[in-house]
Amino acid sequence: MPVNNQVGESSANREVAIVYDDIKKTRNIDSINNFWKHLANNPVLLQETWEQFKNSMADGEISALMKELIYIAVSISNNCNYCIHSHTVSAKKLGMTPDMYNELIDVILMANKTNSIAIASGVEVDEQFLCKNR
Amino acid sequence: MPVNNQVGESSANREVAIVYDDIKKTRNIDSINNFWKHLANNPVLLQETWEQFKNSMADGEISALMKELIYIAVSISNNCNYCIHSHTVSAKKLGMTPDMYNELIDVILMANKTNSIAIASGVEVDEQFLCKNR
Amino acid sequence: MPVNNQVGESSANREVAIVYDDIKKTRNIDSINNFWKHLANNPVLLQETWEQFKNSMADGEISALMKELIYIAVSISNNCNYCIHSHTVSAKKLGMTPDMYNELIDVILMANKTNSIAIASGVEVDEQFLCKNR
Amino acid sequence: MPVNNQVGESSANREVAIVYDDIKKTRNIDSINNFWKHLANNPVLLQETWEQFKNSMADGEISALMKELIYIAVSISNNCNYCIHSHTVSAKKLGMTPDMYNELIDVILMANKTNSIAIASGVEVDEQFLCKNR
Amino acid sequence: MPVNNQVGESSANREVAIVYDDIKKTRNIDSINNFWKHLANNPVLLQETWEQFKNSMADGEISALMKELIYIAVSISNNCNYCIHSHTVSAKKLGMTPDMYNELIDVILMANKTNSIAIASGVEVDEQFLCKNR
Amino acid sequence: MPVNNQVGESSANREVAIVYDDIKKTRNIDSINNFWKHLANNPVLLQETWEQFKNSMADGEISALMKELIYIAVSISNNCNYCIHSHTVSAKKLGMTPDMYNELIDVILMANKTNSIAIASGVEVDEQFLCKNR
Repeated sequence: MPVNNQVGESSANREVAIVYDDIKKTRNIDSINNFWKHLANNPVLLQETWEQFKNSMADGEISALMKELIYIAVSISNNCNYCIHSHTVSAKKLGMTPDMYNELIDVILMANKTNSIAIASGVEVDEQFLCKNR
Repeated sequence: MPVNNQVGESSANREVAIVYDDIKKTRNIDSINNFWKHLANNPVLLQETWEQFKNSMADGEISALMKELIYIAVSISNNCNYCIHSHTVSAKKLGMTPDMYNELIDVILMANKTNSIAIASGVEVDEQFLCKNR
Repeated sequence: MPVNNQVGESSANREVAIVYDDIKKTRNIDSINNFWKHLANNPVLLQETWEQFKNSMADGEISALMKELIYIAVSISNNCNYCIHSHTVSAKKLGMTPDMYNELIDVILMANKTNSIAIASGVEVDEQFLCKNR
Repeated sequence: MPVNNQVGESSANREVAIVYDDIKKTRNIDSINNFWKHLANNPVLLQETWEQFKNSMADGEISALMKELIYIAVSISNNCNYCIHSHTVSAKKLGMTPDMYNELIDVILMANKTNSIAIASGVEVDEQFLCKNR
Repeated sequence: MPVNNQVGESSANREVAIVYDDIKKTRNIDSINNFWKHLANNPVLLQETWEQFKNSMADGEISALMKELIYIAVSISNNCNYCIHSHTVSAKKLGMTPDMYNELIDVILMANKTNSIAIASGVEVDEQFLCKNR
Repeated sequence: MPVNNQVGESSANREVAIVYDDIKKTRNIDSINNFWKHLANNPVLLQETWEQFKNSMADGEISALMKELIYIAVSISNNCNYCIHSHTVSAKKLGMTPDMYNELIDVILMANKTNSIAIASGVEVDEQFLCKNR
């Protein structure tokens, strides 16, 4: 890993330990995964990211499960192998079924296909799609 | 637009007209938008894409509205201005509220942020996230 | 791998086995590579993808070899390590020489360079390049 | 455009004028397109880029036409609207037929589709695809 | 624009007006640019983004000018036309010279070139580059 | 690795050996890293790339250290794991401190966030940002 090794749970300072505890409690898990242990080298960013994470991924008008699917879709687009793996597990814990996963992949492939066609053709946005205080 | 102009509704051949009619009926709209009119230069791809589109974006284990949100997330990642505009309108028709849109953006930003951090750090996938017939 | 393990040749159901046999026959190979064995968890997508694959990558107005080069170019742009590896092998089987590979890389680098310059400068498309039923 | 306006043909200094003349002669065209007129603000990069461009896009083991198709494929992946437009015109001048264009799009869509599936699944590269002085 | 029109300065509520005033004061400008006027539809995200923006772009161990160059490099990679334009202007205000801009473009092109070569070749990270509490 | 194995230092021909020696001398290192050993399969591209590399990454109006930070920012955007690793080491050798690294990540995250918001909103470039011989 660039710059730094991970901060293990036993070597975390107080500031980091508080975040680690909250992650374990919130997610009902026993150990911290590599992402957060790496990020702990920057305690300010660790804390900020975890707070935003909790807020943005919680149930709201969009359910936590649907948010995980959106998160996976973005992670596949960004080719982030770590996040694809970790959030596929998160989504399964929240109830993602095999059929739901297949539908997710179908939508992603559909979006990629029509995105590519639209980009290749340079087609202009229709007047009706432009915002007029819709 | 590269290669070809759009195929207007009045100049569509029988093959294309059948797809145009199905698009208008399925979506309950009066006119065909630019994307399909451009794609109609390749009737085989037009028909294949529309059939896949209908199937993959319909209500299933994931609702049609949530599929639109996933589609928008991918389109933003791919920077496809046309698809961002057209599917934001589709999502609103299906009931996307302003709060729902704000949550969608929050999840996309969260995914981008943690994707970037994971990529920057080269952090390795935890053993627990690797598939063993989960 | 997220969601599922691979479907080995001996554990494939009839639907999957038919596709596996066609892949081996079409490509004149003895065993199925990991990509298709993973995709077999979704037999519908497996079959659809393989059929499209056979059609789109076969000799046509563009030769199968040139199609492999285009495929590699896209895979490098998408940073898909698996597809870069597997299709570099495919291209060599179809006759890609070392000089041809070097020219391919040169074109990709040239496109990336001029793409970046055009994007950085925000230069507008010349009137002469806009389509008027060319 | 960021930083600078274009350098018109009449206001080009000697260094830039030599490149402009070579572009017009090589391509058998009457006027310089916007890309080069913008790049001329940096005469060193203009000259270097044009020399590389001439070399890498010329007929070789890969024909100039096939190189244009590869270039378009990369430009669509990079979402470079300028380069998509200008090189679609170049490819047509070199003999790209409508069927050839349709096949190009099919290959690009096929690559994007299988790239996405491979990335989503995190599938590992088969031993047989790793290089051992093949 | 998708979803909403911009929030003009005269129609801003108190919450938004406070951010607008701080933007104008901090940047010593007379009017708010479109980005913030669009973002003001989501006052929470507006405030959060502006606060982060002020902090992350201010002089620190990396000067504000160098931060603008890094910001432009990322924006070109992400193909964000708006941000390329607005931050090229910001960088010039902070003292970016034409030569500095040319060097910036050279570094971006160099990174893109070597990134593409490394991705195309699938070259493995040298042992010496892996982190061991360096 | 696709196509070819690396060219070891002992098996380099004269043309490649000259570049290898210059790399070791310029960087004050004892051995050649994998990137260059792979690229040596194409001696023309090796030489061209190394020459450009030396020029574009050297101290100029932008310092060599700041150029490394820009290079890392682009490599993270391009998700090039090899280049992220190798240039993080280069940057540390040139004096990148932990705080500087944290600021770099902050700027990259800020750019990604505002890029995504601007792309999602389709916001138009303000008149004031368009170039008029600024």
